[in-house]
Amino acid sequence: MKAYELTLQVMLKRATDLFGHKEIVSEEPDGTTHRYTYDDAYDRICRLANALDDLGVDPGARLSVMAINHHRHFELYFGLACSGRSIHMTNHMLPDEHIVEIVNEAEDELIFVDPAFVDTVENVADQFETVEQYVILDDDVPETSLEPVISYEDLLEGRDTEYDWPMLDEDREAGICYTSGTTGLPKGASYSHRDLYLHTVTHSHVDVFGISENDTVMPVVPMYHVNAWGLPYTATMCGSKLVLPGPKTDAEEIATLIDRENVTVTAAVTTVWLEMAEFYDERDDVELESLERVLIGGTSPPEWLMEKFDKEIDAPIQQGYGMTEAAPHLVNTMTTSEVQELSESERYQQQMKPGLPAPGVQIRLRAPNGEAVPHDGESTGEIQARSPWLIDEYYARPDETQQVFTDDGWFKTGDVGVIDEYGYLEVVDRLDDVIKSGGEWISSLELENELMAHDAVEEATVINIEHEKWDERPVAYVVQREDVTEDGLKAHLLERFPKWWLPDQLVFIESIPKTTTGKFDKKVLRDQFTSEHGRLPIDE
Amino acid sequence: MKAYELTLQVMLKRATDLFGHKEIVSEEPDGTTHRYTYDDAYDRICRLANALDDLGVDPGARLSVMAINHHRHFELYFGLACSGRSIHMTNHMLPDEHIVEIVNEAEDELIFVDPAFVDTVENVADQFETVEQYVILDDDVPETSLEPVISYEDLLEGRDTEYDWPMLDEDREAGICYTSGTTGLPKGASYSHRDLYLHTVTHSHVDVFGISENDTVMPVVPMYHVNAWGLPYTATMCGSKLVLPGPKTDAEEIATLIDRENVTVTAAVTTVWLEMAEFYDERDDVELESLERVLIGGTSPPEWLMEKFDKEIDAPIQQGYGMTEAAPHLVNTMTTSEVQELSESERYQQQMKPGLPAPGVQIRLRAPNGEAVPHDGESTGEIQARSPWLIDEYYARPDETQQVFTDDGWFKTGDVGVIDEYGYLEVVDRLDDVIKSGGEWISSLELENELMAHDAVEEATVINIEHEKWDERPVAYVVQREDVTEDGLKAHLLERFPKWWLPDQLVFIESIPKTTTGKFDKKVLRDQFTSEHGRLPIDE
Repeated sequence: MKAYELTLQVMLKRATDLFGHKEIVSEEPDGTTHRYTYDDAYDRICRLANALDDLGVDPGARLSVMAINHHRHFELYFGLACSGRSIHMTNHMLPDEHIVEIVNEAEDELIFVDPAFVDTVENVADQFETVEQYVILDDDVPETSLEPVISYEDLLEGRDTEYDWPMLDEDREAGICYTSGTTGLPKGASYSHRDLYLHTVTHSHVDVFGISENDTVMPVVPMYHVNAWGLPYTATMCGSKLVLPGPKTDAEEIATLIDRENVTVTAAVTTVWLEMAEFYDERDDVELESLERVLIGGTSPPEWLMEKFDKEIDAPIQQGYGMTEAAPHLVNTMTTSEVQELSESERYQQQMKPGLPAPGVQIRLRAPNGEAVPHDGESTGEIQARSPWLIDEYYARPDETQQVFTDDGWFKTGDVGVIDEYGYLEVVDRLDDVIKSGGEWISSLELENELMAHDAVEEATVINIEHEKWDERPVAYVVQREDVTEDGLKAHLLERFPKWWLPDQLVFIESIPKTTTGKFDKKVLRDQFTSEHGRLPIDE
Repeated sequence: MKAYELTLQVMLKRATDLFGHKEIVSEEPDGTTHRYTYDDAYDRICRLANALDDLGVDPGARLSVMAINHHRHFELYFGLACSGRSIHMTNHMLPDEHIVEIVNEAEDELIFVDPAFVDTVENVADQFETVEQYVILDDDVPETSLEPVISYEDLLEGRDTEYDWPMLDEDREAGICYTSGTTGLPKGASYSHRDLYLHTVTHSHVDVFGISENDTVMPVVPMYHVNAWGLPYTATMCGSKLVLPGPKTDAEEIATLIDRENVTVTAAVTTVWLEMAEFYDERDDVELESLERVLIGGTSPPEWLMEKFDKEIDAPIQQGYGMTEAAPHLVNTMTTSEVQELSESERYQQQMKPGLPAPGVQIRLRAPNGEAVPHDGESTGEIQARSPWLIDEYYARPDETQQVFTDDGWFKTGDVGVIDEYGYLEVVDRLDDVIKSGGEWISSLELENELMAHDAVEEATVINIEHEKWDERPVAYVVQREDVTEDGLKAHLLERFPKWWLPDQLVFIESIPKTTTGKFDKKVLRDQFTSEHGRLPIDE
C-alpha cells in the first residue's frame, strides 16, 4: 500500500475536521424535514459501521441500497465504503427480473430499503441467492414478509459513535452501479475508492463544475444511480451544505427547496428544467435568487431553456456528458478564452454543446472502421474515452467488457459525436439510434433538438423504423406546447436539414415514455409503432 | 500497471489536444522576448526526447537543470519526465559544495545549464562523479572548460518532431528537488508522476487557487526550486497562457510584464510584493489592470500589503503554505462561508492567515511530547501534515527520513502553528527559531510580523541569542522605511505582547540577508551577532 491511499475516508475526514458544523438538510419520505450536521452524520456513520461489524457483515461484503436521496442514504454512502464494504446502488425502478439478476450477480448480502420499495423487494425476495437480511430505512419496520428484518434506527441504536477505520487499498471497490439496461441486461460498473476520489477532486476544478465550500449543493439526480453524478462525494470533500430532496422532485417542490435553503447549485436531467422554466413563468412567489448554476445531463437542453436560465434566472446551465461507466463525469460546458472572443450568438452555440473533456479525461472520435475522424465540427464518429476513473471492465462480464473496449484500451461509448475546431464535443446521437437511410446516416438527436427548438413543441423524440426501400426511415413523436401542424414542423426542419432527413411520419402524443433514468424510451415507441404499422411502405 | 496512470504525459496531451494554439511567452536571458505555442513547445519537447535517446541517455536517468524561468526550461520539465527521465531542479545559488554534493548524490548524468551559470559549474566540474556531458541552454556554446559540451539548439537540430511516449508507471520519479539546506546539507525530495498529477489537479480546485484555462499565469518563483510552486504543470493541464519572466524579477520588470501580457495570476515570495507596492505608488504608468490575484508564500504578508492589493489593486493576495517536501502546496487562503459572515476586519484577520488545508491534505498540531494540541486559536504546536503528494522519504537518507516522520506516518514540518476555531492555520514560527526563554516560548515570527505591521518598518527579523540566565532571548533587526526609534517600536510591540517578549536589542540595518530562496537568513545574523557580542549578559 502507498503511504497515502486515495479513499472516501479522506473526504469524510476533511468534512468533519474542517466543516463539521455545516448542514445536511434532508427531505424525508414521510414528508418531514431532517436537519443535522456533518458531525452528526459522522456519529451515525460510525454507529452504522459498528452495527455492521456486530451483525457479522464481512468487511469485504457488497450491500444493496434501494432508496431515494435522504440522510440515511448519505450515511450508507460513507458508512459502507469507509468500513471496507461496497454500496450497490440499486435502482428500484428496474424491472423485477433485472433487480433479481443484479442483486444475485453482485452477491449482495443485505438490502437496505426505503419503506416505499418494500413491496418491490417482497415480490422477488424468494429469488435472491445471497441476501441474508433486510434493513428498513425508517424508525420502524412496516408489515412485511421480508425476514430477518430490522429498522435502520434499531440497527444504529446504542452503537458506539467512534470507529477505528481500517487502512484501505485505494483500488478496493467502494461502490457498484448497474447500467440501466435499455438494451440487454444491466451491466455492473464497479467504482474503486481511487476512481471516486479522482472524480471528486476533478468535479471541483474551476474549469469543471467548481463546486466549493461556499456552495449549497442539491442533487436532484438520484443517489440510487451513478452516485447522484458524484455530488454527495464532492459536497463532502468540500464541506458544502448539502440538500437532499428526498421524494421532492417536481418543479414546484424543487423551487421551494432552492428558495428555502438558498441552494446555489443543483443537478437534474433536462426534463426537470423544462418543467421548472414553465413553472417559473407562472408563479410570482418563486425567486431562485440564490441559484448560481444548474447542472444538466442526459440530453442537451434547447436554446430557449439555456437563454432563460442564463438571462432571466441568472443561473446558467452547465451541461455534463458522461455515463454509468465513467462514474459519470467526462465532459462539461466551459467557456474557453478563445470562445470568449466570439460574438454572443456564436458563444451561445458553443455553450449549448456538452463541451470539453475534464482534466484527466481524453476523448476521440472513431469511424466504424476504426479510423480517426477529424475535429472539424462536421464529421461524425463514435465517441471513445479514457479517464483515470473510467471502469476497465464490467463486473463479471468478460464478453461485454471485450465489446466496449478498443484494442488500445479506449472505452467505446456507443454515442456518436462531432468535435469542433474549438475542441467542443457535441453528442449527435446514440450509435443505436442513428437512422441508416439509403446508406447515409440521419441523426435522430439532431432532429429531436430542432423539433424541441420550435416554440410550440414541449418534447419530441425521433425513432428509426424499418423501411422496405431505404432500410430505415425516421418517425417523430411530438408533445405540443401550443397548436402546431405537421406541415408547420416540417417547414421548420427544412430550414436546417435536407428534405430526405424529414420524418416519414409525425405523431402527436400526450407524453413521451421515459426510462427509469428519465431518458426518452425509444424502444417502447418503436415496438408500438411496429406492432401497429409494421415496416414503412415504399410509397410513403 | 493500472489502465490509466497519473502522469505528466496526461497534462502535455491535454494542452496540445485542446489548447495547442495557446501562447507561452518567455523572457530570455539575452533580453529578447520569445513567443510560441503549446503546439510549438510540443514539437521541441519531442525533439528533445529523441535527442536524449540518440545520445544514449538511459530512459531512467536523472538529469540536472540549472536555469531560470524560460521556454527551454519548460521544455525540459516535460521532455525529461514524459520520456521516463527525471529532472533534477538544481538551485545554482547553493554554495559550491552543496551543488557537488547533490549532483553526486542524485547521480545526474548530464547537466543542462544557462550560460550565466557556466562559471558556477566550471568551478566544481572536476568533483562531479557521474556527469558525462553538458548542454548549454542557448543557441551556441560559450568559451568554456566544460566537456563534452553542446548547445541546446544544436542538440535539438534536425530531430524528429514526433515521439512515441513510453507507458510510464505513475510511481516513477518525474523530478527531484533538494531542500535549500539552511540547516545542514540539502536533502532530496523526489516527486513521482502521481505526486505531481495530484498536486496539479488540486491546484485548480476552486477552493485552492482555481487556476483556469482563462488565466494567464506568470510564475516569478523560480523553476529551479520546487517546480515553481507547481505552476508550469498547472498551467499546462489547464491550457493557460503561460508567461515565464526569465531574468525579469524586480518590481518594475514584473509590473511591465503583467501589463503587457495581461497576466491574471502571478506568484512570488512576499518580498517581491513589498517592492511592488512601493513601485505601484510611485509610478502612474503601471496599471496592473488584468491582475486578478497574487499568490504569495514564504512569509505572511503584513496587513497593509494585503489591503493594498485587495482594495487598491483589486488583486487579492492568496497565501499558500507548503514546503519542498510537499511539492510544495499544503494550505491556502480561502474565505469559508462561516468567515464570510464575520465583520470586515475579522474577515481580514482570517485572510491574513495561510488558511485551510487543500482537499486531500490533512494537518494537525502536536506538542513536543507528541500530544494533540487543541484548535483554539491560541495553543501552539508543531505543524504535522499528510497529503497524497507529500514525499515519504528523503532520497537516499534513511536517517534524516526517520527524523521527520512520526510513527504514524505524519510529516513533521518543523514549523510551529496555531489552528483557530474556523480551522485556519497560522504559522507562528520555525521550531528552530522559537525563542526558548526561561522555560517559555517566544515566537520570533509573531514579533517580526508585528514589527513589520508598523508603518515605519520595511522589513524586520527576530533571532534567538543565547542568554546567560534565560537560555535564549530575542534580538530584532529592522530595516526602516521612515525614521523611528527603538522606544517607539518597543511601545508598538507592547500593545500586543507581554513585556518579557520584547527584544533585548533592536538593531537597525540597511537590509536583511536572505537565503537563496528569498527567506530571511537568520543564521547569518545569529553568527554575526554572536561573533560580535557573544552571549547576552544577565543585566540586559
